[in-house]
Amino acid sequence: MRNLTETPVIVLNLKTYREALGDGAERLAMIAAEVREAEGVNIMVAVPQTDIYRVSRLARIPVLAQHVDPKEPGGWTGHVPVEAIKVSGAVGSLVNHSEKRLALADIGFCISRLRGLGLLSVLCTDTPETSAAGAALEPDMLAVEPPELIGTGIPVSKAKPEVVTRTVDLVRRLNGKVVVLCGAGISAPEDVARAIELGTEGVLLASAYVKAKDPKALLSEMARAALGASRR
Amino acid sequence: MRNLTETPVIVLNLKTYREALGDGAERLAMIAAEVREAEGVNIMVAVPQTDIYRVSRLARIPVLAQHVDPKEPGGWTGHVPVEAIKVSGAVGSLVNHSEKRLALADIGFCISRLRGLGLLSVLCTDTPETSAAGAALEPDMLAVEPPELIGTGIPVSKAKPEVVTRTVDLVRRLNGKVVVLCGAGISAPEDVARAIELGTEGVLLASAYVKAKDPKALLSEMARAALGASRR
Amino acid sequence: MRNLTETPVIVLNLKTYREALGDGAERLAMIAAEVREAEGVNIMVAVPQTDIYRVSRLARIPVLAQHVDPKEPGGWTGHVPVEAIKVSGAVGSLVNHSEKRLALADIGFCISRLRGLGLLSVLCTDTPETSAAGAALEPDMLAVEPPELIGTGIPVSKAKPEVVTRTVDLVRRLNGKVVVLCGAGISAPEDVARAIELGTEGVLLASAYVKAKDPKALLSEMARAALGASRR
Amino acid sequence: MRNLTETPVIVLNLKTYREALGDGAERLAMIAAEVREAEGVNIMVAVPQTDIYRVSRLARIPVLAQHVDPKEPGGWTGHVPVEAIKVSGAVGSLVNHSEKRLALADIGFCISRLRGLGLLSVLCTDTPETSAAGAALEPDMLAVEPPELIGTGIPVSKAKPEVVTRTVDLVRRLNGKVVVLCGAGISAPEDVARAIELGTEGVLLASAYVKAKDPKALLSEMARAALGASRR
Repeated sequence: MRNLTETPVIVLNLKTYREALGDGAERLAMIAAEVREAEGVNIMVAVPQTDIYRVSRLARIPVLAQHVDPKEPGGWTGHVPVEAIKVSGAVGSLVNHSEKRLALADIGFCISRLRGLGLLSVLCTDTPETSAAGAALEPDMLAVEPPELIGTGIPVSKAKPEVVTRTVDLVRRLNGKVVVLCGAGISAPEDVARAIELGTEGVLLASAYVKAKDPKALLSEMARAALGASRR
Repeated sequence: MRNLTETPVIVLNLKTYREALGDGAERLAMIAAEVREAEGVNIMVAVPQTDIYRVSRLARIPVLAQHVDPKEPGGWTGHVPVEAIKVSGAVGSLVNHSEKRLALADIGFCISRLRGLGLLSVLCTDTPETSAAGAALEPDMLAVEPPELIGTGIPVSKAKPEVVTRTVDLVRRLNGKVVVLCGAGISAPEDVARAIELGTEGVLLASAYVKAKDPKALLSEMARAALGASRR
Repeated sequence: MRNLTETPVIVLNLKTYREALGDGAERLAMIAAEVREAEGVNIMVAVPQTDIYRVSRLARIPVLAQHVDPKEPGGWTGHVPVEAIKVSGAVGSLVNHSEKRLALADIGFCISRLRGLGLLSVLCTDTPETSAAGAALEPDMLAVEPPELIGTGIPVSKAKPEVVTRTVDLVRRLNGKVVVLCGAGISAPEDVARAIELGTEGVLLASAYVKAKDPKALLSEMARAALGASRR
Repeated sequence: MRNLTETPVIVLNLKTYREALGDGAERLAMIAAEVREAEGVNIMVAVPQTDIYRVSRLARIPVLAQHVDPKEPGGWTGHVPVEAIKVSGAVGSLVNHSEKRLALADIGFCISRLRGLGLLSVLCTDTPETSAAGAALEPDMLAVEPPELIGTGIPVSKAKPEVVTRTVDLVRRLNGKVVVLCGAGISAPEDVARAIELGTEGVLLASAYVKAKDPKALLSEMARAALGASRR
């Protein structure tokens, strides 16, 4: 399997849409695995917490958790420590998605814990300023997503390109290693290309893939758009 | 499989102890399944969120989630809706454990949602008064656990028997159907017997089982103590 | 000053609207105090946390906090213990408003603590079922407010009268003493009358008063409507 | 009154200790105001939310809130928007104290809002890494406080000096303007001197002052120690 941080990268967040639970998670992950293989692009899939084990065993694609709790293993009923996702087959986790936000100290804990256990961290932030803050915590990847655009189908790369360019700018000054992704409203292959043209190295998307009539066709085109834009 | 609400009942909460993740969850659930079969006592196991699917497929024992989020399936990154645990094989869930507390409105939502999807709800509460409040929401089971005793090995049935008897009293006045359990500090077979003598119909325990040198022997004795006390 | 639990009662929640901070809180409380005096109706005002002291010293009207934290005085930066509102002149507090929700155990703590310090508790709930649960905790007053109607100007007494009647029903079975209020969308004198005709003993309202062109006229009419409906 | 960001600076956090509510807040703030005047050192006091107005009117010392909520004025029952503390006389606020933590996005919001309204932000962080992250958000001051030392009387400057020096280092690389403070366990004048020798420009302390037998004497000595160390 190729390097996890190879770029361009497409991170698919299945969230907990009805279409993405159990069998649905398997189906959507299998399709993504095929496209990953066929197009030679780094695609990862963040599945519901309850489906990490199930999808990891089956699909040839790196599986992420959508959240980890800032706890070590122990007497923490209902929490999901980093160790729990690791033994279930995840290669990393989203951290601080706007639908599952964390306190600053807890973001620090989770990123450091993921790193300590050899897992990938994909930090989600909401503005260029919090992206700069996040970059100081040295996640492997950072996805900027203005929350007001999430799920709208209006791509941030079009609606607020300055959020993306300013994020890239601020983050690059602080940290040359973090892979910057563009999230929120990414729906079409041209949104992916545009995100990369604005200086990011990939995208984080959710509903557009989960709800697509033909997710394979959409993702294949997005993969090609990502590759094309990266080579320019 | 026997009726889920058959009493006496022993609910094992594996929490997220290191011994209870992945392979550990499987092992501890398999042992509990054997005791359940051998002793003919209703034993259930609440496993880490990431192990619900894995344990449900393998072990012949009812599997509970340790927590569900008050959300319908949808754009909720990192959450665990009731539907997610159902498609993963759980027969129900703990609700409002003191290590994963919920707002009152959310407890109402979760219990109602579990019921609507045909799943069992085991509401955890901390005092006789909040137990009475909880009973009004009509969970299937209710476990009273003074948080200051959780994980101490000091059984509530010994340290604060009046908490247990007053809970049974208040709950019974409001709701004749809910199965009342005794939690917090249950460590030995005699604690189980005592809990039932105080008027409950079972126990909720965690570290004593997870950390036991011989969990099978301990659970077998607890099962027999439960049966013995129930017949008296 | 008349008894705090005298009915009918009108509780004005100023929230943290711009019109209700500082001087605004004073002005809106002074108007309410005048109407209270002139109409002889039990009116109370829940002011921003920062204005409790200021309004209590000045206005002849019982002042409530909008929230208390489930903490005893101590090393709790930024929290508001019950003792803090008491020394500032509040006679009680809202508890568990849908905009500031509390865990079940914390509601139990806050109601019990308010009672222990001789202060009034006005528990807010969202459905008949959680109202029944709340009644078991023995608050002095209980206001049912379907959150989807809050701030809409659509009165629950018109949109969902069955929520109100079922709440009155369930609460009365459990607890004969709690004063039941009707909240959410109360905007006009006839909404107040209707709420009382449905079996409640008063109302909890916010934006309609805070944003009224003539808050004095509106509140005076509401007070008369409340008295009128109570006598029928 | 001297410039709010003049250094060395001593920020007194009264928390919600019983000794620091109402009259207590007034008394402790008046003493601090006297020392501020007599010693010519920049001293500020963070008082309970309910005492901001009361203390601001009375004591000649800059008053901070201990927390602000990430909300604009509006329908937010029980919250404390930045506008609420401003109209009550506060000159700024602590942000993200370990006893009242905030999500990363909310820290961004609060700091930006405080700045927009001309108020001072004192961001609290727990490690050098989260301090670096916090510095990117450009608060006016930043206090590093390892939570395990808070309230212990064991000064971080002695127990973990490397936390302080590494924080100063990382923050300085990112942001030359933020005033770095040392918190957690500061109890004696020599702790203040040591904190400044390690490169900070002041301290944040709480229980040592609130619980002191002679708070005036203690604070006077701390002020002199701060001045002395700053001149070396």
